[in-house]
Parts: sequence; C-alpha cells; structure tokens
Amino acid sequence: MTTTEAGATPAPSPEAGADAVVTDHDRGVHGYHHQKDEHLKRLRRIEGQIRGLQRMVDEDVYCIDILTQVSASTKALQSFALQLLEEHLRHCVADAALKGGGEIDAKVEEATKAIGRLLRT
Amino acid sequence: MTTTEAGATPAPSPEAGADAVVTDHDRGVHGYHHQKDEHLKRLRRIEGQIRGLQRMVDEDVYCIDILTQVSASTKALQSFALQLLEEHLRHCVADAALKGGGEIDAKVEEATKAIGRLLRT
Amino acid sequence: MTTTEAGATPAPSPEAGADAVVTDHDRGVHGYHHQKDEHLKRLRRIEGQIRGLQRMVDEDVYCIDILTQVSASTKALQSFALQLLEEHLRHCVADAALKGGGEIDAKVEEATKAIGRLLRT
Amino acid sequence: MTTTEAGATPAPSPEAGADAVVTDHDRGVHGYHHQKDEHLKRLRRIEGQIRGLQRMVDEDVYCIDILTQVSASTKALQSFALQLLEEHLRHCVADAALKGGGEIDAKVEEATKAIGRLLRT
Repeated sequence: MTTTEAGATPAPSPEAGADAVVTDHDRGVHGYHHQKDEHLKRLRRIEGQIRGLQRMVDEDVYCIDILTQVSASTKALQSFALQLLEEHLRHCVADAALKGGGEIDAKVEEATKAIGRLLRT
Repeated sequence: MTTTEAGATPAPSPEAGADAVVTDHDRGVHGYHHQKDEHLKRLRRIEGQIRGLQRMVDEDVYCIDILTQVSASTKALQSFALQLLEEHLRHCVADAALKGGGEIDAKVEEATKAIGRLLRT
Repeated sequence: MTTTEAGATPAPSPEAGADAVVTDHDRGVHGYHHQKDEHLKRLRRIEGQIRGLQRMVDEDVYCIDILTQVSASTKALQSFALQLLEEHLRHCVADAALKGGGEIDAKVEEATKAIGRLLRT
Repeated sequence: MTTTEAGATPAPSPEAGADAVVTDHDRGVHGYHHQKDEHLKRLRRIEGQIRGLQRMVDEDVYCIDILTQVSASTKALQSFALQLLEEHLRHCVADAALKGGGEIDAKVEEATKAIGRLLRT
C-alpha cells in the first residue's frame, strides 16, 4: 500500500481525473479524501458516544438504557461504513472498470468481502 | 451472585440511594456492577479502535482496510452488548420472575425490544 | 402467564409425553405452544416470499429488486425469531428462576448464545 | 423493465462488451443470468429450511433449537444476497462506469442503498 506517497501527493481529489500518473489504487486511497473532514467529525461523534457508554457503566445506569446507546453507536458506525463504501465503489471500483483487464474482478471481490464482514457483525 | 451485597454497598446508583429494600429494578441496575472494571476496559479498548479509525482516515489509508476496522469495532460493541444483556437476564429478569406479578412480562418485553434494536443495526 | 395450564394440557410435546411432572424444559417446549398457529402463519408467509424470490430470479428481475425482497424476508425471519425468544424468556427462563439452583444460569447462557447467533447473521 | 426481451437476447454474457445495443440496465438484468441455476438451487434449499422450521414449530421442538435454525436460514439468505450483489457490481455498476456520464453515480447510490437495507436487517 503506497498510502504514504498517496497521502503526500498534492492533488488528492479524485476529480483530478486527467492526471495520468494517478492509478486507480491511488484513487481508491483518495476516494473519501474530499469528505475527510465530514468523516472525522462523524468518528469524533462516535468516540464521544463510546465515552458516554463508559460514563453510563461507571454511574450504574440501567442496563437497558446502556444497550440502547450501544445500538445507536453501532448504527452510527454502520452508516459511516456505508458512506465510505459508496465513495469506494464510485471511485476505486469505477476506475478499475475503466482501466479494464482483471482489475475490476479483483476490486469487486474485495468490496464484496468487505460488505460480507459488515453483514456478519 | 452478590447482587444483594451489591445492592447494599454505599450504593453508587442514584435510583438505589441508601434504601435497604433492594427492588429487582435496583438489582437490574446492579446486575453488571461486579463486572464494571471488565466492561470499562472493553469500552476503553473500543474507544481506542475509534481513535484508530480517525488516524486511518487522516492518513488516507485504503478504504477497504478502514472498513475492516469498522467491522472489528462493531463486533466489539456487539459482544459488549451481549455480555451486558446476559447479566441483565440473569439478575433483573430472573428477579422479576421471583417477585411474581406482571413484573416479569414487562421486563421480558423490555429486554426483547432492546434485542430487537441490536438486531436492526 | 398460563404456562401452568399449558404445561398441564394433554401435552403435545413428544418429550413431555403423558408425564405429569412438568419440568421447566417441558415448559420451554410449550413456551410458544399457544401461539403455534400464528407462528405457522408467519412461516408460511416467509416460505411464500422465498418462492417469490425464485420466480424473480427465474424471470431475470433486476438484481436490486431481488435484494430488496431478500431484505424483507430476512426481516420477517428476524421478527419471528424475536417473538419466539420473547416467549422463551417469559416461560422457560422465568421458570428456571422460580425453580432456583444453577438452572437459571444455564438457561440464560443458552439464550444469550442464541441471541449472539442471531446477531452474527 | 424489459426483462423478457432482455432474457431473450442470445448473448447474455456481459463480456460481449462490444455489443452496442445492450444497455447497462439490460446487463444488470443479465448480471446473474449465467448463474441462474445455482441461485435457484440455493433458494430451493432455503425454502426447504423454512419448511423445516414449520415442522419444528408443529412438533413443539425446543425454542432454542428453532432459533438456531432461523440463524442458519438468515445466514443462507445473506450469502445469496452477497453473491447477487457481487455480480451486480461486476456487471451493472462496471458497465455504468464504462458508459460514462452520471449513470455510475446513480448505480452506486442504488447499490449502496440496497446494501444499507441488508445491513438494517
């Protein structure tokens, strides 16, 4: 994974599509880049929910109320995953299709396995 | 099961207060009390995973690798919920059964709704 | 809770047979008995949905529309499971609590494992 | 939906990419066509599982054993959905990418919503 180089490139936006040196893998890496702030905000909110759960346990809050909060945090994680997945399909998988060759099959299988892991949890 | 002692401890629960008459609701509140440290350790580990997700997004890690970490965090939240639920059934629901009356129906319906919320996510 | 009458009915359960001494396990077996018709109706509806899926595949219906129907069938199976679980907690688990001894721990652990299997899918 | 005509086309294989008259929607319809028999076999197996559940309820089988069978059926439905989704991404979404225009965004959004519905159940 060349995430470090990728992260270092000046134009991480996938819309810089004309750029010839950007491979679809780099694009995959960059797929969610332009929504980075939104993702980080979501994740900080989830982190706050988890700290809230610690407070609830510490203060002996009623089990059922804690379970309700766990459901909310899981839901928030799932919708973060869905948004990330949508960007991945739009950029990384679509680029693999444009590239042609076996690339698309590998990317689709990889994405399907990731979806399977989300379903199993 | 040290729920009775737990109920008698300089009760950290606001509902329980100094009240000596321990109701099954108080017991429910105390159901997970003796495993508090384990729960807090679990939740701190999950909080660390969420912070790890923020680092991954910040460092433009490949989408699929982030999704794998999201699945791990969701799984960890689910098993925390399951453990909490098991203690709730063992203490709160069982006590409602011993108490007799309609209490048990209310507790079981409440627990089933909580399980339903976990399943929907 | 009419478990006692239920347990006393000319027991339809093979395990129970004509045995007059109704154990909580027998009661567990009888937990959903009085709602048997409703359960069978639900399951026949789900069976119809699965046959509908076969028709859709056979008629080359658009993938996304098939996936929507799969989600509906999964949801129907989950709510059938939830209803069964609620009756199990109300009868089998509650009876184990009344019986006293280690029975309750075994029943609660068994129920929690079943809930875990539902969550994993 | 022109599923009938689509189903009648001689070359349902998406690899027949040169064919200009085949729209990506038709291809979507054809995405799972060549695996139709496998899909139908899977669905008939699931239908058998649902009938098995009816037998279990009818014979007063122990609740927990029924719940285990429900989990197995749900898992089977989920993996059927995953396979269908993989084919959809490989054919329908990939074709939308090749077609260019806004088509890909619509297809990706549609697929993500379908994945979301699977996760919610």
